[in-house]
Amino acid sequence: MARHHYRCPLRWSDMDSFGHVNNVVFLRYLEEARIDFMFRLAPGEGSESFTGGSVVARHEIDYKLPLVHRHEPVLIESWVTRIGAASLTIGYEVKDEATEDAPEKVYVRASTVVVPYNLAEGRPRRISAEERHFLEKYLDEPAGSRAESRVAA
Amino acid sequence: MARHHYRCPLRWSDMDSFGHVNNVVFLRYLEEARIDFMFRLAPGEGSESFTGGSVVARHEIDYKLPLVHRHEPVLIESWVTRIGAASLTIGYEVKDEATEDAPEKVYVRASTVVVPYNLAEGRPRRISAEERHFLEKYLDEPAGSRAESRVAA
Amino acid sequence: MARHHYRCPLRWSDMDSFGHVNNVVFLRYLEEARIDFMFRLAPGEGSESFTGGSVVARHEIDYKLPLVHRHEPVLIESWVTRIGAASLTIGYEVKDEATEDAPEKVYVRASTVVVPYNLAEGRPRRISAEERHFLEKYLDEPAGSRAESRVAA
Amino acid sequence: MARHHYRCPLRWSDMDSFGHVNNVVFLRYLEEARIDFMFRLAPGEGSESFTGGSVVARHEIDYKLPLVHRHEPVLIESWVTRIGAASLTIGYEVKDEATEDAPEKVYVRASTVVVPYNLAEGRPRRISAEERHFLEKYLDEPAGSRAESRVAA
Repeated sequence: MARHHYRCPLRWSDMDSFGHVNNVVFLRYLEEARIDFMFRLAPGEGSESFTGGSVVARHEIDYKLPLVHRHEPVLIESWVTRIGAASLTIGYEVKDEATEDAPEKVYVRASTVVVPYNLAEGRPRRISAEERHFLEKYLDEPAGSRAESRVAA
Repeated sequence: MARHHYRCPLRWSDMDSFGHVNNVVFLRYLEEARIDFMFRLAPGEGSESFTGGSVVARHEIDYKLPLVHRHEPVLIESWVTRIGAASLTIGYEVKDEATEDAPEKVYVRASTVVVPYNLAEGRPRRISAEERHFLEKYLDEPAGSRAESRVAA
Repeated sequence: MARHHYRCPLRWSDMDSFGHVNNVVFLRYLEEARIDFMFRLAPGEGSESFTGGSVVARHEIDYKLPLVHRHEPVLIESWVTRIGAASLTIGYEVKDEATEDAPEKVYVRASTVVVPYNLAEGRPRRISAEERHFLEKYLDEPAGSRAESRVAA
Repeated sequence: MARHHYRCPLRWSDMDSFGHVNNVVFLRYLEEARIDFMFRLAPGEGSESFTGGSVVARHEIDYKLPLVHRHEPVLIESWVTRIGAASLTIGYEVKDEATEDAPEKVYVRASTVVVPYNLAEGRPRRISAEERHFLEKYLDEPAGSRAESRVAA
């Protein structure tokens, strides 16, 4: 039930002409968290890993609160919501943690379907036993973003 | 049953270090198509329009085929899949049309929930009757991307 | 004395939170023009060309007028201001041409030092006779941006 | 003779399809350093500052070494090389500091002419006495990038 935490620095140019972090840029933040997550999963002992050999098959992303540029990074919490034979799903929350003075603020909830890829052979491949073992440590329920979005007016 | 067509030029820098148009950049292409769509919907006769006053509440995006930089633009077909009281959903296909020699190639299917926003009052607002009238001309079924994605391994 | 003309489409996201095309984005526009220029120089008959084998050694760029997003592309005029043994300099103007109603508007003047590169051997290489022959057709004086910038307060 | 130090995090997407940090992205890094520099100069006691009220008039940038994405930030050293009546010039080096095992590595040397701007009146303005006082603490010689670039082949 572990979760991966990545503190993602903002850039001033992440804001668009409305003065908020642009909706597309949040996908960049997720990419940064996902790359950090994949590197952690690759234990560095020469094992076959996801690094450099996976493709994104699908994103779902819900925008909850606007975000303005500031010097403090945002926290991206990532975990695994599904492990299939040849794909996995990552869930994320982009947020500020609760403090003594303020409750938690969630800016974005999202999920990504990732497909491991064999670059040498140019085609998708199955998740290895070693990878599955790592992924299971991060396996947890989705954040429920779909349910919420369905009740939108 | 009309559909909006936007020919979106690529940039060389849209490719990432794997040599393909990066998954995040497709959201930029959808943004370009959506802005063009919203401008078309705003008839220019001084009516209240979506321009400058809407926010993105949700994206879903499925990646079907990789795309490499080339000088010809990609076609983005957009239409309306849902009109609510205070939000609407836009469906898209990013593709190359069929030619005599080749069948249609769909790179991406996606949808976006857009919420009209009253910038002066700083809050969401209902869709006006005039806007609804325009949107209905583009109303059509979703492309079925959700159904397909559910059968992923 | 030929000049290369490239009509560069803008994107809404090229604007920053001040509502103007961001100064960094103009370098992207120059990249697009330069890639188009290099492709034109490569005559397509299997000759060794700059494509994929050159690096940027230096940019100089002067901002003359602010630019706001619009649907019409900007014109980028490019030419060659210097041909060395192992590098060349490209000059550019980013502008709107004069019309009956309005004089020419120059948004940016810039120059780039490009170094041909041998990717296989991993090092810079000399300009070939064939490349020099092509480049000489576009050889012309710099636009004088340096002289102007020196009189800034 | 103080210098401003900013540790700029890289993003994986800063690399282009050649697998190096793209030349245009270095200008983004300089923007991040410059914004941090301007915020430091603005002492936060309600004084008129550069924040939100300056425009870039010119960049010069020399590329010395290629940079590949890694998790450690790069150091950007910034200082003031010229204070005029209505503009100033900032010099930068983007680099890794020397360690016991390796000498300093300079990736980029650059300079930017910045013009203070009165947003309310929509025009450039003079540098205030207070701003000049702050800028003088960071005043130093240019890094000599122009001299070097003139001897390029």
